[in-house]
Amino acid sequence: MSTFSTVGVVGRRSSPHIADTLDAVVSILTAAGSEIIVESATARLIPNYRSVDLIELGALVDLVVVVGGDGSILGVARAVAGQEVPVVGVNRGGLGFLADISPRQLQEKLGSVLAGDFHVEERALLRSTIVRNGEPMGQAIALNDVVVHSGSVSRMMDFSLWINDEFVYEQRSDGLIVASPTGSTAYALSAGGPIMSPGLDACVIVPMFPHTLTSRPLVVPGSAEISVFVGAEAETPKVSCDSQVDKSLQPGDEVRIVKNPESLRLAFPNDHSFFESCRSKLDWGTRLSRPS
Amino acid sequence: MSTFSTVGVVGRRSSPHIADTLDAVVSILTAAGSEIIVESATARLIPNYRSVDLIELGALVDLVVVVGGDGSILGVARAVAGQEVPVVGVNRGGLGFLADISPRQLQEKLGSVLAGDFHVEERALLRSTIVRNGEPMGQAIALNDVVVHSGSVSRMMDFSLWINDEFVYEQRSDGLIVASPTGSTAYALSAGGPIMSPGLDACVIVPMFPHTLTSRPLVVPGSAEISVFVGAEAETPKVSCDSQVDKSLQPGDEVRIVKNPESLRLAFPNDHSFFESCRSKLDWGTRLSRPS
Amino acid sequence: MSTFSTVGVVGRRSSPHIADTLDAVVSILTAAGSEIIVESATARLIPNYRSVDLIELGALVDLVVVVGGDGSILGVARAVAGQEVPVVGVNRGGLGFLADISPRQLQEKLGSVLAGDFHVEERALLRSTIVRNGEPMGQAIALNDVVVHSGSVSRMMDFSLWINDEFVYEQRSDGLIVASPTGSTAYALSAGGPIMSPGLDACVIVPMFPHTLTSRPLVVPGSAEISVFVGAEAETPKVSCDSQVDKSLQPGDEVRIVKNPESLRLAFPNDHSFFESCRSKLDWGTRLSRPS
Amino acid sequence: MSTFSTVGVVGRRSSPHIADTLDAVVSILTAAGSEIIVESATARLIPNYRSVDLIELGALVDLVVVVGGDGSILGVARAVAGQEVPVVGVNRGGLGFLADISPRQLQEKLGSVLAGDFHVEERALLRSTIVRNGEPMGQAIALNDVVVHSGSVSRMMDFSLWINDEFVYEQRSDGLIVASPTGSTAYALSAGGPIMSPGLDACVIVPMFPHTLTSRPLVVPGSAEISVFVGAEAETPKVSCDSQVDKSLQPGDEVRIVKNPESLRLAFPNDHSFFESCRSKLDWGTRLSRPS
Repeated sequence: MSTFSTVGVVGRRSSPHIADTLDAVVSILTAAGSEIIVESATARLIPNYRSVDLIELGALVDLVVVVGGDGSILGVARAVAGQEVPVVGVNRGGLGFLADISPRQLQEKLGSVLAGDFHVEERALLRSTIVRNGEPMGQAIALNDVVVHSGSVSRMMDFSLWINDEFVYEQRSDGLIVASPTGSTAYALSAGGPIMSPGLDACVIVPMFPHTLTSRPLVVPGSAEISVFVGAEAETPKVSCDSQVDKSLQPGDEVRIVKNPESLRLAFPNDHSFFESCRSKLDWGTRLSRPS
Repeated sequence: MSTFSTVGVVGRRSSPHIADTLDAVVSILTAAGSEIIVESATARLIPNYRSVDLIELGALVDLVVVVGGDGSILGVARAVAGQEVPVVGVNRGGLGFLADISPRQLQEKLGSVLAGDFHVEERALLRSTIVRNGEPMGQAIALNDVVVHSGSVSRMMDFSLWINDEFVYEQRSDGLIVASPTGSTAYALSAGGPIMSPGLDACVIVPMFPHTLTSRPLVVPGSAEISVFVGAEAETPKVSCDSQVDKSLQPGDEVRIVKNPESLRLAFPNDHSFFESCRSKLDWGTRLSRPS
Repeated sequence: MSTFSTVGVVGRRSSPHIADTLDAVVSILTAAGSEIIVESATARLIPNYRSVDLIELGALVDLVVVVGGDGSILGVARAVAGQEVPVVGVNRGGLGFLADISPRQLQEKLGSVLAGDFHVEERALLRSTIVRNGEPMGQAIALNDVVVHSGSVSRMMDFSLWINDEFVYEQRSDGLIVASPTGSTAYALSAGGPIMSPGLDACVIVPMFPHTLTSRPLVVPGSAEISVFVGAEAETPKVSCDSQVDKSLQPGDEVRIVKNPESLRLAFPNDHSFFESCRSKLDWGTRLSRPS
Repeated sequence: MSTFSTVGVVGRRSSPHIADTLDAVVSILTAAGSEIIVESATARLIPNYRSVDLIELGALVDLVVVVGGDGSILGVARAVAGQEVPVVGVNRGGLGFLADISPRQLQEKLGSVLAGDFHVEERALLRSTIVRNGEPMGQAIALNDVVVHSGSVSRMMDFSLWINDEFVYEQRSDGLIVASPTGSTAYALSAGGPIMSPGLDACVIVPMFPHTLTSRPLVVPGSAEISVFVGAEAETPKVSCDSQVDKSLQPGDEVRIVKNPESLRLAFPNDHSFFESCRSKLDWGTRLSRPS
């Protein structure tokens, strides 16, 4: 019988194939005896179950199964942030760092999770706050990264970076990526940042096309309070969370980025390995032999 | 009166100028009422004081003043590792990350430290152990980095990397740098690694000229046990600590790298700032203005 | 007497200081006996001379003096492309790679040029053509770079790259920079491209935040015909010349980039050195001594 | 019948498998009617043919077939430099950029070459000369790269770089790689250099672990005369050609690197493509579809 009495199901990509995978997920859940609640946008594909908004789902279920890519997990992560419910990801063919159960292994891997053969990784979330004229203007959550940028490709903005109220540098560049360990294998990696192992309590700050050759990725403790002050010459500056949510900024705004008090709980089958994901996704080559 | 009743003095570079700085240090210490003990190799330049070996010095004094460059601090760090005594560095003109009191500011800055106006940063040390046929073959300590390499420039070696007994990757490259936060601004930075703030509890693993394009710097928690297994095709492999101490390796050897239980205690005047050092040493440019 | 009987004057940045520099330029030209024609937008600052549009200016004068930054030169370059007239740049304080005469040296350096003590560097221009459904949709000229990009920061586009009708790769990234040697010290450098010496007959192709770790800058001969085919998933793709002129693209569009038949003729005082500019602008450090 | 009446055969790696491939090569050559001459070190594996030293081989044959890896081609390239004879490479399993005929395709691909269905690429060679006290001390040829280095891994040397007698920079680093287009996909690529297409008339200069953040790969025309002056503090400096031939240097030595007047003629089957090699070797991914 399932370890989870009630399971939420979310499917994010509108393709004919996702319906097949969702059907398979439902079958496995039903066979394991879990009650199913479907996210409302997904209910179009799985019509015969109770459906609720994503924002409510986390409070009602014991596990959320997300079918899609890593991008789908990002959206769910922001919605269930602050709730205890673990999330497990099923990909749609392309291997993901977060959604690492493939459709072919669905029966085996999801079955293992339902049978209790899984572990939970606490993944840090970032919380960004826009502060304008001393007033916080609302917050947003990110699992991968918070990006402060010029708003236009190949246009620079000026800004200053402060950490724990200490001045770090002033820069002209296309922007700045602040990434969590989870995000270190995503956009920040493309921008030249290091890979951080998932359990590291740290953030990395990576400049985007800096107008100086001396700027390098900077890794700071997870407890650091990072502030980016938008400069006077920035024309259409923006802040973006997980490349999914954009907000406009104004010159003089501060974007304050801290680790969110609550983290995302990701459930993985017990044979999951971060370094195995790196070897597969980043093509690190394979183990030849270990001296023994 | 000095906060430190007994102070050790070490000078590392044999130039006429270092004698002047050592004399000035001695004057300041004497004026503050500290008793002076001189490291034996330095006694040639400061003959009229009790002198002991570097290895004994740490146990006898309340503070060690090192005159030289960052390289001098590295040598002292390995010698006093495991002792509580704080170390303060005076540079010889070239600004250092570790030896950041300049001769021109000596009176003011060293005076501040002696007057108690200082803070101590605990800097993690790395401990590397060669394991051959299952037997540890001795250890070495590093403040900056442990480098496993082919022994010859522009020659590759093969090795495998394991973290906490989990396989990470097999690689052909000139070698691998494992750096502490302190070392992240030294050799690892030249090799493309990120800067890590000094208080971060982490190490970075940076490949040297890897024979693959997919290998990137990897940041792992300070608690990680890092193992490098030397491959069968390595011809003259070596392990190097702080680019100062080399030991030969054999195919099949394991180099095990962990955080040393004891750290180095570095004393800095209270106005010292890591980011200010970055701006000066790495030429990060200057602060124009902070929006207020 | 001036080598140039008629000289065009262009000033690009609207600050009080630029008027002073323009006045000084006019004095030097007048003293040297050159006739002056002013670009129409600049005539507001220098009212008492014949003024014409930038596009006409090149045909009427023997030399164009541009006061501003490197960005000002880019605009003039596109306007006078195809004309023989040499261009000389005067910066407004910030040293430029293209505008390398500083206001303090104006009398000496501009005087040298007018006295015939100068050399001309032929700088390659890039010509980009959008081809839609087999039809060319107009062209644009760039001195630094042609950038095909997603249109939104931190959004990816898919595209394929072809060189001389040979397939190179398919990529998902924020875009692709194609830079001339002149542009290799600008945006392409920020994106990790190499520096190319100005006389090299080559282009460099630099991916922007590629979604793969194996993509590297690629240097191809100046004769190469570079084609970028916009993929089906690109949402708001654009092509940008010198970060100054943007055009919208559609999925399926080809952006064809070749070396322009005519180049830009840049006049420099005879003591100008590209490597000296690199040392100053990129902070390469200084020459200590040459063994002799 | 073979286009080549006399063919030289060279095998470089001493493994049982190479003998099989050499036998297959001999069979194909014999069937095509080519006379065979074997390099003397290879004669151990193919005993029944005339054998001569590698250095003589190039003068006696119309084609050289090299069985081994890219490293084997490098050795042959240095030996036959200055002779017109084309070289074709057969790899031993690992795909090579130079040795790109695989054993499985041997009959088809080598048959094509012998039947005249091939093209020749002229690959530039580098010639390095050590100049001591104004006197040239002998020369060496490289196909991939000339590396001036400190002689010890993780030790720095100081040197100055000059191009066409113009000062470029002074540097402290582990050394400097000067690579041809052919070498741009080898060691220089590991060090962060760009890929240069094979026909480009250029060299790239790549610093090795530079002690400054501002040093970047520099691409210069093939006609450039590159000089590296060894600094006074270098302890055991060396120059290395293709990572195969090392010579010791002294402080004050100049290493002068120019394009060799004669190039290496590499024969490839007509369906060979450099970009296809990049996609395979560097894992650039595959072509999905071309808009048409």
